[in-house]
Amino acid sequence: MKNKQEKVAAIIVAAGEGKRMGGVDKVFALLGGEPILMRATRPFQECPLVDQIVVVVSAENRAKCQHLAGKGEWSKVSDVCLGGERRQDSVAAGLKRLRDGDWVIVHDGARPLVTVDLIERGLEVAKETGAAAAAVPVTDTIKVVGDDEIVRETPPRKNLRAVQTPQVFRVDIIKKAYQQARGNVTDDASLAEQAGYEVKLYTGSYDNIKITTPDDLALAEVLLKRYER
Amino acid sequence: MKNKQEKVAAIIVAAGEGKRMGGVDKVFALLGGEPILMRATRPFQECPLVDQIVVVVSAENRAKCQHLAGKGEWSKVSDVCLGGERRQDSVAAGLKRLRDGDWVIVHDGARPLVTVDLIERGLEVAKETGAAAAAVPVTDTIKVVGDDEIVRETPPRKNLRAVQTPQVFRVDIIKKAYQQARGNVTDDASLAEQAGYEVKLYTGSYDNIKITTPDDLALAEVLLKRYER
Repeated sequence: MKNKQEKVAAIIVAAGEGKRMGGVDKVFALLGGEPILMRATRPFQECPLVDQIVVVVSAENRAKCQHLAGKGEWSKVSDVCLGGERRQDSVAAGLKRLRDGDWVIVHDGARPLVTVDLIERGLEVAKETGAAAAAVPVTDTIKVVGDDEIVRETPPRKNLRAVQTPQVFRVDIIKKAYQQARGNVTDDASLAEQAGYEVKLYTGSYDNIKITTPDDLALAEVLLKRYER
Repeated sequence: MKNKQEKVAAIIVAAGEGKRMGGVDKVFALLGGEPILMRATRPFQECPLVDQIVVVVSAENRAKCQHLAGKGEWSKVSDVCLGGERRQDSVAAGLKRLRDGDWVIVHDGARPLVTVDLIERGLEVAKETGAAAAAVPVTDTIKVVGDDEIVRETPPRKNLRAVQTPQVFRVDIIKKAYQQARGNVTDDASLAEQAGYEVKLYTGSYDNIKITTPDDLALAEVLLKRYER
């Protein structure tokens, strides 16, 4: 997977406001009786390839998370730090807390069904290009529209992927990408692409959903029960 | 909505094999105790603007559907006809069964949570350009890849829509689009676009999901219960 001497850090991004969850803070919403953020972090704690974990949270949740970090299960969590306004500001805050390392894995704190296998495959694929992201084939037909909602293009579906996290980067690539960052992006791989790096996608999982709404949470409960059977 | 004299037909496409449903034929899988196809068809039956309904099914399901059609609830269903190999072959089969009309609405038999409102808004918007399709803003980050799975482009998400059905067409447009059809497409609007027509998207519903897997069905049960509360 990685050379014995290579160090891997994970940044768990959980600073979003969760406005669409109807008042409940999504990273502390319970899934199978446990906060989503606990489930999203555990596979990184369990993965033997991961050395350090930085959890990025909002000001309101920091104390709660520091309490969790102190409870023992989060022994690899070196920092519970404050996020910024945009998602990319939160990742940038996390990057500042890294100890010397070779690889960085960014993961959404709102994707609680990530697995050790997804993490390890990401590290494997990232070795090819220096940057890799989990993704699944798009099942919907996607259209590009103008501001008038008139269809401009229906790109061929077979070349479209819906990206997820984990997203894995060689440290120099993600740092360079963030130095050169411009505008608002929805994932970290986009910044690496903008900076001219090749990003390779690898097969994620349709189960690795992001919890944004109460319906997402209900679906996650269904998926979790299926795992447990 | 439509001029009094204008006639509207609906084609419900339910000829897919549902290979991913684990053996159960998806259009007869039960949702809230009722076959999905019944739920997908009912709003068209209930919508006062719809005059004729054609249901396109597979050979195995034809007898079962004809039985449903004979039970009275499907009084607008004029035909239960056989579909073809590809989705577009099934729609073409349905088009042959239309009585003289002005507008055609195509709907997936596997989208049971469609509403009368979605149908009526589609007819309204279609008046602007002659062709309209329900769609929702894409929430995932979508990337275009080459065959090597290396990212070629991350198109701006704000201009991306995931299309659904209903899709509404002026009869001459859909017929012309099908005459000129080439290749394999995943929705009917694409054929109209290929034939040079403008297609306008209108706001569908995130609840208007297509049932393809047992997980989709489980999510639909959650959504349905929310409606019933």
